Amino acid sequence: MLRLVHRDAQEVLRAKLQDAGFAPVRAELCARLFVDASRDGVPSHGLNRFPSFVTSIRAGIVDPSAEPVRVASLGALERWDGRGGPGPLNAYACMDRALDLARQFGIGAVALANTNHWMRGGNYGWQAVEAGFIGLCWSNTTPNIPPWGTAERRVGNNPLVVAVPRAAGPVVLDMALSQFSFGALADYARRGEQLPVPGGFDAAGQLTSDPRAIFASGRPLPIGYWKGSGLALALDLIAALVSGGQATHQIGANPAGETAVSQVFIAIQPGWGAPEAREVVANEIVAYFRGNAAPGGYHPLFPGESSLAQRADSDAYGIPVDQDVWERILAL
Amino acid sequence: MLRLVHRDAQEVLRAKLQDAGFAPVRAELCARLFVDASRDGVPSHGLNRFPSFVTSIRAGIVDPSAEPVRVASLGALERWDGRGGPGPLNAYACMDRALDLARQFGIGAVALANTNHWMRGGNYGWQAVEAGFIGLCWSNTTPNIPPWGTAERRVGNNPLVVAVPRAAGPVVLDMALSQFSFGALADYARRGEQLPVPGGFDAAGQLTSDPRAIFASGRPLPIGYWKGSGLALALDLIAALVSGGQATHQIGANPAGETAVSQVFIAIQPGWGAPEAREVVANEIVAYFRGNAAPGGYHPLFPGESSLAQRADSDAYGIPVDQDVWERILAL
Repeated sequence: MLRLVHRDAQEVLRAKLQDAGFAPVRAELCARLFVDASRDGVPSHGLNRFPSFVTSIRAGIVDPSAEPVRVASLGALERWDGRGGPGPLNAYACMDRALDLARQFGIGAVALANTNHWMRGGNYGWQAVEAGFIGLCWSNTTPNIPPWGTAERRVGNNPLVVAVPRAAGPVVLDMALSQFSFGALADYARRGEQLPVPGGFDAAGQLTSDPRAIFASGRPLPIGYWKGSGLALALDLIAALVSGGQATHQIGANPAGETAVSQVFIAIQPGWGAPEAREVVANEIVAYFRGNAAPGGYHPLFPGESSLAQRADSDAYGIPVDQDVWERILAL
Repeated sequence: MLRLVHRDAQEVLRAKLQDAGFAPVRAELCARLFVDASRDGVPSHGLNRFPSFVTSIRAGIVDPSAEPVRVASLGALERWDGRGGPGPLNAYACMDRALDLARQFGIGAVALANTNHWMRGGNYGWQAVEAGFIGLCWSNTTPNIPPWGTAERRVGNNPLVVAVPRAAGPVVLDMALSQFSFGALADYARRGEQLPVPGGFDAAGQLTSDPRAIFASGRPLPIGYWKGSGLALALDLIAALVSGGQATHQIGANPAGETAVSQVFIAIQPGWGAPEAREVVANEIVAYFRGNAAPGGYHPLFPGESSLAQRADSDAYGIPVDQDVWERILAL
């Protein structure tokens, strides 16, 4: 495992993106979003993913120069077209626009069609809380989990982000609607470990904690069984209807793979009155959730807590990256 | 099991509510919301719950004459005070207001403080889709599930409703963030049945499908383990901060039980252009989710599908109610 200086890592990625056709300012932001993911402990959607991202640009699947455009407005709700551009830049622009709308109307929403994988969804939650707003966003995906009770993959694991600002550490939930993301399953499989709880079905249709059996059957489990598959369906409907973009079944029909996905970005003013008073409330809620330390000092983690801890570690010791990943990036 | 004529059932409840101090129009609406829940197959939050609702009014916990008032506005986002009034009426009024805001701004949101249990959350999802809008709403609750990894109940099972209009049957997800609602656990326990999947921990800290063991330990499971408890925390934070009302830990500190809860209602225009074109998209998405019928004609159910089926049955044969429940209502 290498440890990279933040600025150096970002500079390498920026240069690679410029070589791939990104304008300088766009290369800079896109590089930061990839590096931020690894800095916060999500390498599966950070540096580990960068080589395939560049490949998708060279293959013409992602257009590095396409910028999103607004195609309709109802006031606090807008529809944007991502025009097949880079997912992280499109998502960042649309959360930014939702934040502007929330400044004006208290709540603002942007539905984005025709975009690409946003990589680490949590980035756009952090973007909202760093601006002082509540952020909600989700993406649809290719069909990759079976609805509860069936063996055919007919819903996406549509990642959902819910972020709430707090000076002492925002709560940033960033979760796929499958019990384990595909990145997490792959990590357990590579380490030869069992999952801590059942994550899908084996070929015989039995619940299993063996990640390799789940890859073999192609049947990962939605969170909460029928509840997660129902939520995934509802989020796909909203994303596709409001954006006018593709739904999961259309994304899955594309032989080129997952592209032209639909996303929703919502920003909300976190309340009225003095920010200090809100901090007191948020701190009380989080402190109660964490509870009294169990023997050994164990606390339940709030969403975003481990990201903050990894960020502090990365800032002190450098951003961790697998040596082979870094070599692949340098060789791009 | 009795079967009641809809109008007769509603008339009985209306009269009981008027006796308990509701103004006529408010009694009518509140009665309908209770009857609708049983009509749609959710008696746990319909007729079964009516006697304890009337008791809470007589005990002075719920003020039948209190109407919600707007206390602040940012345009498309408003803060309302429920003033300790009846939860179903407050919730209905606030979703109605969110719909008005969505008509004006494309998206609208109302955060409601100081309200009471809304009974069947799905009612407000149906309210949104019947008006032609997407609806999202949630409530916080008293702390009733332990965050993942602990044994102390420190988050609510904060019910979440996500509703999408569709002429051929809207998708209305209405779910507690515990794997099983307390009503569902009680139903399995009464029938002496095991849960279909683990629903909590037993006294020894092992996952169990025995509903009585879960009542004994007081440790029901959040959906998706750590994911559901993180989502419950985030929804509590948003409800409390934006409404200015109580958070879960404050609700739990009240010796009088669960009162003065906080809720959020969001309505969204379901898209642009011709409604007919949106219907085509929504129908495609739902048809894909349901897939090809398995042997025996089995389809995965979309959220709201069983409510529609039960509604048709109720309209044909009468609204089902346990005889003892109905006798308790008549004796109120």
